[in-house]
Amino acid sequence: MAKFITIGERIHCISPVIREAMEKRDPAPILKRGKEQLEAGATYLDVNIGPAEKTGVELMKWAVQLLQGEFDNVPLSLDTANKAAIEAGISVYNRAKGKPIVNSADAGDRISYIDLAAANDAIVIALCAKQGVPSNNDERMTYCQEMLEHGLGLGMEATDIWFDPLYLVIKGMQDKQVEMLEFIRQLKDMGFNSSGGLSNVSNMMPKHIRPIMDSVMMAMSIQCGLTSAIVNPCDQRLMETIKSADIIMNETLYADSYLEL
Amino acid sequence: MAKFITIGERIHCISPVIREAMEKRDPAPILKRGKEQLEAGATYLDVNIGPAEKTGVELMKWAVQLLQGEFDNVPLSLDTANKAAIEAGISVYNRAKGKPIVNSADAGDRISYIDLAAANDAIVIALCAKQGVPSNNDERMTYCQEMLEHGLGLGMEATDIWFDPLYLVIKGMQDKQVEMLEFIRQLKDMGFNSSGGLSNVSNMMPKHIRPIMDSVMMAMSIQCGLTSAIVNPCDQRLMETIKSADIIMNETLYADSYLEL
Repeated sequence: MAKFITIGERIHCISPVIREAMEKRDPAPILKRGKEQLEAGATYLDVNIGPAEKTGVELMKWAVQLLQGEFDNVPLSLDTANKAAIEAGISVYNRAKGKPIVNSADAGDRISYIDLAAANDAIVIALCAKQGVPSNNDERMTYCQEMLEHGLGLGMEATDIWFDPLYLVIKGMQDKQVEMLEFIRQLKDMGFNSSGGLSNVSNMMPKHIRPIMDSVMMAMSIQCGLTSAIVNPCDQRLMETIKSADIIMNETLYADSYLEL
Repeated sequence: MAKFITIGERIHCISPVIREAMEKRDPAPILKRGKEQLEAGATYLDVNIGPAEKTGVELMKWAVQLLQGEFDNVPLSLDTANKAAIEAGISVYNRAKGKPIVNSADAGDRISYIDLAAANDAIVIALCAKQGVPSNNDERMTYCQEMLEHGLGLGMEATDIWFDPLYLVIKGMQDKQVEMLEFIRQLKDMGFNSSGGLSNVSNMMPKHIRPIMDSVMMAMSIQCGLTSAIVNPCDQRLMETIKSADIIMNETLYADSYLEL
């Protein structure tokens, strides 16, 4: 049994509260969001420090030690355009609960993030895109294979490359959703792990609709074989959906209390 | 574009209120439930009068005329073990909004319900089972083909046979759910229409869980290609799920107001 892996997205410098806490090295707001997400059922926490060109190395080390120290070595996804900061984070990372995730590579300018993961025995999220939005699944699969070959050539296990199908916004690309889901199924049929930023789907929709649309896309994605996603675990409807999907897919055993577990 | 077809299940003699209204030919409770379901988004209304051995013919005629008279010839699914009652219902049925549905045939004792549908130019829901629960999808497909051949031999269009994959209860048959969904996909790949009693999945679960589990199974089923289901349209979460699934599958165009449409 392999439960769906939820990567909590809420420690992100785009949030003013988190940005300020990162700048001031103020643990409280960051730990608060970490705790909320873990209590809601997140497995991994994503730590997005932004570009962080000057201070990233020190900041990522601080954040990794802060979160793993407080939350019993919670596994983390390290998310920044500053590669040195990711390596620094990994240098102080405790693997007791799982490998670190490098977030993220693509088949273009960011292919070297696969090298970074390979050199540090990490998982990498690998976006099946090169420049802009892939026009169809053949293009997605081309990039997938380029990144797979690259990673395998560097000695990585295929299962440590989590392919991201690239969720597309419905408002503007409604007619691309079925094909994207079909790509998740192709990844599954080939035995690959996968991940993605699900909420892009409902971008620009009214606030009350987003949890509904995200939940339906999540259920469909898990049925197609998605193995993880970067989401807001504090979205109750979404987490109920993930837990129920794990039951239907027979990845966790049903109990009447499963939503509380 | 082919929107998912929701068949409302709430005019059912298992409900004491409906049973009494049917016995007394009291329109009000039946029309109330019809109105609620149509306002919630049902396309078809199922009319289940039970075995109705003695009074079925007259009762079904009365119910069909009552509902179609009140609700602008709403299309109906006629649901009873009394075949003469179904024929009687069809004899007064107005097809302006769609053919009547005969609910339901199977590949065993009830295969003659296909004859009934064929003789009356009706749709038939055809349960892919013979005796008890099919043990796997090969067995389901055998029954599907038997019923298809039977219907085609009687001059039916394949699209008027809506195959029912047989939803199974999770509490007891959790490990059968993935295979059942795969069967829906097989039906879709062959171009068949399908339907089923979705809520069987969450049977015996706590009341607050059922809309959650049903919604996740519904999203997964629509992704796999299910084209209709017999459900409670007054379950708001379920209807939100169906409407959102139609958006993702590109069967209805997105608008910010789509949940209200």
